[in-house]
Amino acid sequence: MDYKKTLRLCAFARILKLATILLFTSVTFAQIDRVEPSFWYTGMNLSSVQIMFYGKNIAQYDVTISNNVAIENIKKTENPNYVFVTIDTKNVAASELTFSFKSKNKVAFTKKYELKARRENSKFRKSYDSSDMIYLIMSDRFANGNPNNDSDKSLTEKVDRSNPSGRHGGDIEGIIKNLDYIKELGATAVWPTPLCEDNDARGSYHTYGQSDVYKVDSRFGTNEDYLRLSAELHKRGMKNIMDYVTNHWGWQHWMYKDLPTYDWVHQFPGYSQSNYRMTTQFDTNASAIDARNCMDGWFVPSMPDLNQSNPLVLKYLIQNAIWWIEYADLDGFRVDTYSYNDKDGISKWTKAITDEYPNFNIVGEVWMHDQAQMAYWQKDSKIGAIESYNSYLPSVMDFTLHDALEKVFNEDKGEWDKGMIKIYDNFTNDFLYPNISNILVFAENHDTNRFNAAYKKDFKKYQMAMTLLATIRGIPQLYYGSEIGMDGDKSKGDGDIRHDFPGGWGGDRINAFTKTGRTEEQNKFYDFTSKLFNWRKSAAVIHSGKMMHYVPENNVYVYFRYNEKQTVMVVINNSNETQTFKTKRFAQSIQNYQTGNDILSGKTIDLKNDIALEGKSVLVLELK
Amino acid sequence: MDYKKTLRLCAFARILKLATILLFTSVTFAQIDRVEPSFWYTGMNLSSVQIMFYGKNIAQYDVTISNNVAIENIKKTENPNYVFVTIDTKNVAASELTFSFKSKNKVAFTKKYELKARRENSKFRKSYDSSDMIYLIMSDRFANGNPNNDSDKSLTEKVDRSNPSGRHGGDIEGIIKNLDYIKELGATAVWPTPLCEDNDARGSYHTYGQSDVYKVDSRFGTNEDYLRLSAELHKRGMKNIMDYVTNHWGWQHWMYKDLPTYDWVHQFPGYSQSNYRMTTQFDTNASAIDARNCMDGWFVPSMPDLNQSNPLVLKYLIQNAIWWIEYADLDGFRVDTYSYNDKDGISKWTKAITDEYPNFNIVGEVWMHDQAQMAYWQKDSKIGAIESYNSYLPSVMDFTLHDALEKVFNEDKGEWDKGMIKIYDNFTNDFLYPNISNILVFAENHDTNRFNAAYKKDFKKYQMAMTLLATIRGIPQLYYGSEIGMDGDKSKGDGDIRHDFPGGWGGDRINAFTKTGRTEEQNKFYDFTSKLFNWRKSAAVIHSGKMMHYVPENNVYVYFRYNEKQTVMVVINNSNETQTFKTKRFAQSIQNYQTGNDILSGKTIDLKNDIALEGKSVLVLELK
Repeated sequence: MDYKKTLRLCAFARILKLATILLFTSVTFAQIDRVEPSFWYTGMNLSSVQIMFYGKNIAQYDVTISNNVAIENIKKTENPNYVFVTIDTKNVAASELTFSFKSKNKVAFTKKYELKARRENSKFRKSYDSSDMIYLIMSDRFANGNPNNDSDKSLTEKVDRSNPSGRHGGDIEGIIKNLDYIKELGATAVWPTPLCEDNDARGSYHTYGQSDVYKVDSRFGTNEDYLRLSAELHKRGMKNIMDYVTNHWGWQHWMYKDLPTYDWVHQFPGYSQSNYRMTTQFDTNASAIDARNCMDGWFVPSMPDLNQSNPLVLKYLIQNAIWWIEYADLDGFRVDTYSYNDKDGISKWTKAITDEYPNFNIVGEVWMHDQAQMAYWQKDSKIGAIESYNSYLPSVMDFTLHDALEKVFNEDKGEWDKGMIKIYDNFTNDFLYPNISNILVFAENHDTNRFNAAYKKDFKKYQMAMTLLATIRGIPQLYYGSEIGMDGDKSKGDGDIRHDFPGGWGGDRINAFTKTGRTEEQNKFYDFTSKLFNWRKSAAVIHSGKMMHYVPENNVYVYFRYNEKQTVMVVINNSNETQTFKTKRFAQSIQNYQTGNDILSGKTIDLKNDIALEGKSVLVLELK
Repeated sequence: MDYKKTLRLCAFARILKLATILLFTSVTFAQIDRVEPSFWYTGMNLSSVQIMFYGKNIAQYDVTISNNVAIENIKKTENPNYVFVTIDTKNVAASELTFSFKSKNKVAFTKKYELKARRENSKFRKSYDSSDMIYLIMSDRFANGNPNNDSDKSLTEKVDRSNPSGRHGGDIEGIIKNLDYIKELGATAVWPTPLCEDNDARGSYHTYGQSDVYKVDSRFGTNEDYLRLSAELHKRGMKNIMDYVTNHWGWQHWMYKDLPTYDWVHQFPGYSQSNYRMTTQFDTNASAIDARNCMDGWFVPSMPDLNQSNPLVLKYLIQNAIWWIEYADLDGFRVDTYSYNDKDGISKWTKAITDEYPNFNIVGEVWMHDQAQMAYWQKDSKIGAIESYNSYLPSVMDFTLHDALEKVFNEDKGEWDKGMIKIYDNFTNDFLYPNISNILVFAENHDTNRFNAAYKKDFKKYQMAMTLLATIRGIPQLYYGSEIGMDGDKSKGDGDIRHDFPGGWGGDRINAFTKTGRTEEQNKFYDFTSKLFNWRKSAAVIHSGKMMHYVPENNVYVYFRYNEKQTVMVVINNSNETQTFKTKRFAQSIQNYQTGNDILSGKTIDLKNDIALEGKSVLVLELK
């Protein structure tokens, strides 16, 4: 996520806090304003459920529960408005329980609490993997499916499409309406940026500073809409990946305004900015103050940094994540700013989720520029094991590949470390990763310059990058709009890399969601992307095959994906000139195959002959 | 070593080969021209000694040995001029043995063979470590101690000081004569570039293409001179580090002209150049052909690549190395092009030597630009363990630090990844190395641009670099001449970075070996260097203390070396301006210390106050 643009609005916050307090004290059940999680499920691995009750002076009451359910413990904090009751739901059937709040042995009030039945086989739900292609959507900027929810009386920031940092009205309904478009593109999973409520007065559209983590932002829709998104995706054989934020909440989070404990968030006291030096998390020479500043410092002033070393906080975050998976029938997580979290806390959080759902995939944002440093964070990393640390994080992002992709296609000459050599070099360190196929590969995301801006919408360069992403090890991730040639310059601000998708809003001049609505150039980008990734869907050898590559010569990169049944040969000629090369050098990979069918052009190539390939172009050959 | 300048001289080689053959056939004991090793020692771990006999058709004879010594095996090859006899010397006392060569049961001739007694405690000889400072000398370019040996009738290339790539006459005697100079500088070990015979017709001065690995090049002196160098060093409490080349010999090596086996060297057939892609040695995606081209390809055409996977070759190289340690009383090795060797072979070679001498240090040239890739090659690397590879190499070189040092002092502003941050970042990956204190740190060597060229003899920048090398973890290595401000531009050719040391040759206008002979500027460089490294000699906390560093701010890098007894605080202000900072930030390191004595200026600094340090300058504070 991006930290540069969010502004602090102290004066406004104070007014809002006052308003919130007034609101809370006037609701019907004065004693209980919030219960989180508001319900739970039977038969969970996490059967010790920590239920948080919030209400004015609620801590003064004694708490009991019905149905002979055991209370494991009751925790009260320095803030009398909270009580945390941990109950044991093991072997408790789906049922409605009742909590009684007593004063002087008399029941003052009660609260119903539902234990629901789980979906069948929920524990062993499948998740996304290297057979998928993930389509990343900036939720506010993709499509406005329901113009009636663009603003909400109860939320501060109102829609303003003219403001690059404002809310534009994109929503869950807009994603659902365009799922067929996404599927036709060849994507099999959708990762929308966070959808939970963010009530910041400005810049709330990116939603990384959440004010309520149990509730979808009403400008995006409802919790039910989110559940419907999952259902509509599943109907199409596609997957729903939630963008989860463990590191921080927004400063408008209701709990931040009435903290359960002083140490619920990291205080110095109050705000202190992270030094962003993530290396301090494993550097054996690091001083404690630098390590703390990185981990406990705030990402930006508007995002209080959660203290996962506080067991109450950690449990709250674990339960919230599991609740969403179970409730919204999710297929995976992407976790924001993973390496800024409390290091032990995030490991426990990740382990708890994968203990609950053994097949559940989680990719963490570990934005570093060194493969050893990224590999450190992947589950069972031998590098992490040097200091006995295990994150339990199944997947990381290939940021060094991204770094290379930003530059290589403007490097015409293949010198010692230029051009395709940079791409080749990225994969020479694959051995550092404990699970190289579970790694996200991407040319761009919502926080980077757009590929088509860096390369001035050069279609040939786009082809080379997409071909690489579609055929290399790992899970390809595309960023919405690039498939129609959208560009956007990060140096002009985040708004520029997060433009509205054309056709997502009523009255849009161009509707790029349809073939007839797209311009000729947009169709050129789209058709290529769609062809490539639809082919990839059934190319099992790309999903799980081994990789063998050859040192690039003359800026031509040749690599193979192979298993016992199939071999795919990929050639990327990044030089400006036609390059002709002998196939003999690749004998170890070509083996007895005779010909290669180019899945892009449909042409058949005789592998006994030299191959000539024009500049800035690609071949994806299924060997026969 | 550098591969760009060596030239191939095929025609000349053919003539020389013919001359050599004529010479060999005319010696007195026609049947045996060479015995290698020419003697061995009793009580060695390596007690199975493979003795190579070379002579015209020697393979036709049966071989026996005296004194009831057991012959383990006799190996003959496709070349009848060789026989390899392996004897078991375990429990054999120092003695003179006799080999008998028989034909039709009659002794045709005999050969005496001496088993010598070892030096006392030879096995547990100490070696160099992080308490040392190593002075690297280009042997031909340091000092011409004996002008009578500048050329040798039997060796092709004659002295020519006017030729930057020619032999200039530097020799062992020249090093011996200037050991007091080197000691006064603060060095405790000397690493001369290779001294064994290199009979190439051109560019032989660097001696990395050897023609006889059991014999010192007569233009450098004799084997006895080399032994005397050790003795003179030891007399001064200093150490002798041999520059050993396992990867290749020179094409003038006598065995290359009459190969024992076709596969003694790697043949494709004949020459094929290495692709220099060392990553292929651990890259799990690498093709076999690329890995082979790197490992088995020749470094340059004049350097036949030895095949250490041939057990005869491997044993030959192991014995040669051990022979030199035992014979010349060595204190350590530096191994050339370590990561170009046969990977399994070099591991066995290294293990054999450290099995023989458990304390013996060996630093390998692993010239890569990624810490994980370098750490892979250090003994017991957890990264290597990912694929169960152990090099057994005790020490590697910190090339990424060198990469940073080349740039940082021209980066005035400390931005996200500029200036001292680059140096700081280098140490954040220390955890990747299995033994971080046994790592060579250097600003330059005989194959790189000279530091004083890169920074235009800027004394302040030199001070910052030397201060870093003298106080950081690892073993500092200096390159001859830089301590008097010598420069040299790699882009002008290797000759430019390997100038003759002024005063090393009779008639030199300047004699920089003496204080009075040095210019004012030379003394400025020398005095600073000498003060720093002489202080380091007894600064135990620098040798073995832990390190704690702080994220640089404003291009100022602050770090501490500490143990239970001592703490040294180092401050390097690489900005152009005076920087003032509070010491409170460093409380974890400063603890209860009150003052710091700057070992350079002698001034005492009160740690309770802010510290102000002028631009481009350093503090090395012993805390009290």
